[in-house]
Amino acid sequence: MSKTILSSPNKEVIIGFDQPFCVIGERINPTGRKLLAAEMKDGNYSRVEADALAQVAAGATVLDVNAGIPLADEPKILADCIKLVQSITDVPLSIDSSIIEALEAGLSVYQGKALVNSVTGEDESLERVLPLIKKYGAAVVAISNDETGISTDPDVRYLVAKKIIERAADHGIPKEDVIVDPLVMPVGAMNDAGLQVFALVRRLREELQVNTICGASNVGFGVPNRHALIAHFISMSASMGMTSAIMNPLHQEQMVAVQAANVLNGHDPNCAAWLKANRPPAPEGEQGSRRRGGRRRR
Amino acid sequence: MSKTILSSPNKEVIIGFDQPFCVIGERINPTGRKLLAAEMKDGNYSRVEADALAQVAAGATVLDVNAGIPLADEPKILADCIKLVQSITDVPLSIDSSIIEALEAGLSVYQGKALVNSVTGEDESLERVLPLIKKYGAAVVAISNDETGISTDPDVRYLVAKKIIERAADHGIPKEDVIVDPLVMPVGAMNDAGLQVFALVRRLREELQVNTICGASNVGFGVPNRHALIAHFISMSASMGMTSAIMNPLHQEQMVAVQAANVLNGHDPNCAAWLKANRPPAPEGEQGSRRRGGRRRR
Repeated sequence: MSKTILSSPNKEVIIGFDQPFCVIGERINPTGRKLLAAEMKDGNYSRVEADALAQVAAGATVLDVNAGIPLADEPKILADCIKLVQSITDVPLSIDSSIIEALEAGLSVYQGKALVNSVTGEDESLERVLPLIKKYGAAVVAISNDETGISTDPDVRYLVAKKIIERAADHGIPKEDVIVDPLVMPVGAMNDAGLQVFALVRRLREELQVNTICGASNVGFGVPNRHALIAHFISMSASMGMTSAIMNPLHQEQMVAVQAANVLNGHDPNCAAWLKANRPPAPEGEQGSRRRGGRRRR
Repeated sequence: MSKTILSSPNKEVIIGFDQPFCVIGERINPTGRKLLAAEMKDGNYSRVEADALAQVAAGATVLDVNAGIPLADEPKILADCIKLVQSITDVPLSIDSSIIEALEAGLSVYQGKALVNSVTGEDESLERVLPLIKKYGAAVVAISNDETGISTDPDVRYLVAKKIIERAADHGIPKEDVIVDPLVMPVGAMNDAGLQVFALVRRLREELQVNTICGASNVGFGVPNRHALIAHFISMSASMGMTSAIMNPLHQEQMVAVQAANVLNGHDPNCAAWLKANRPPAPEGEQGSRRRGGRRRR
């Protein structure tokens, strides 16, 4: 049974089949966020700070940090943000870039065991990213596409994932440190997108015993009431064995899906986390009484 | 692959692994509804009528009809309600009683192929209900408890289900006409209640190839925000292979769960049902224009 351990100086997060679903906050990412991109480029990280705190408060146990801004000094910005986020939160981070120098800059300042997002099945990616993972003792997200692109055939995606795991082993990286992203297509464009992922997740879990991750939002691209669809995709994936997702913890519907999946998969003893998150607020009068140490009126 | 076919004079509903999840409306049931019980006992079925129409409008494709009222003439009331509901809707019905005379009274007036709710693994139940199922060519809900009660061991519940299917076969009832209820416990009382059902549903599907059903509401008994928990239980169960549920279609969250499960399990071609149910309403002016055959303003 695979356990992926990530850490910050003060905290360890375990991703695994017998663990609560791991919520990796996706917000610190300038893609599609013009204002954030402009600010980050100028070295103004106030919004990064706010996003970090808000996501942890909403229940993210890992934060993804991405600094992909065109024509910017991505390695420096990514390293700055990693240092900043580590100084104000205690959750482990996912260092997210498609540029090898940025990944290395982020890893070199990171304290603890990071998740690196990501390596693909392309030879160039494998040969450049895996040595870094080994050097820094990190874990890595393995995206199941290769030189031929993203196959619509789930069997091909499975084989790409298997290849990445084997190559990682060649570099001395255990499969516990490889989390596979089976790639989620928009269900509005591909009717069996959900089924494909469910079948892949189950196979990756049962045949390769690896943890899995996904960018959950993609499944709902272009359909109305998409947050409800994404929420059920998360809980259904979790029932098939998905162990983590890069998602927006500020969407309440999606966090309720994670909480429900934890309860129903037996990973929330005595429903403690569910009760804490879903208990209706006490009436103001009662709160007041309690705050003053008074008894409840009958 | 099991297909359970239910029918009314004008409509056929197929429950099966490759079919949309079957929503069986649970509202026509006087248990815990004092006003409805008193009215039904007096022969006033206006609320039964309203509940039938509302549930069909909300998306139920089968309606459960129960007339279990203490000290009332249950066979007569059940038969009356079956006739009434069949006269105003065209969905197949589930005839729900623990009294054999009431089941027979309902079956004798039912037009089409009904679902009978239910038989248990108790010898007396098997010997009294199964001949009725055979006589009327109905399908039956098999509840996986026996003389010893409801086992908390899912392996025992599996064996009870298997026994009912075998006994049904002895009576000439094919397993296509037996829908197994693996029994859902409240997760607030039993931490692995969800996991137990998921594992049982998968086993019933893969080893016995039978359709499954559950009373979904029970899982959320006593916990806050229970409709959200029930909703995710429904979609997660559907991903494990559950094919139907007796549930309240008037709870929007639960119907969205069914719609999402159908999309993500590939049973909603082109997301047509999702789009119909979840498309945001057009602004009033536009609706008006369309109704008058006008063009949209740009």
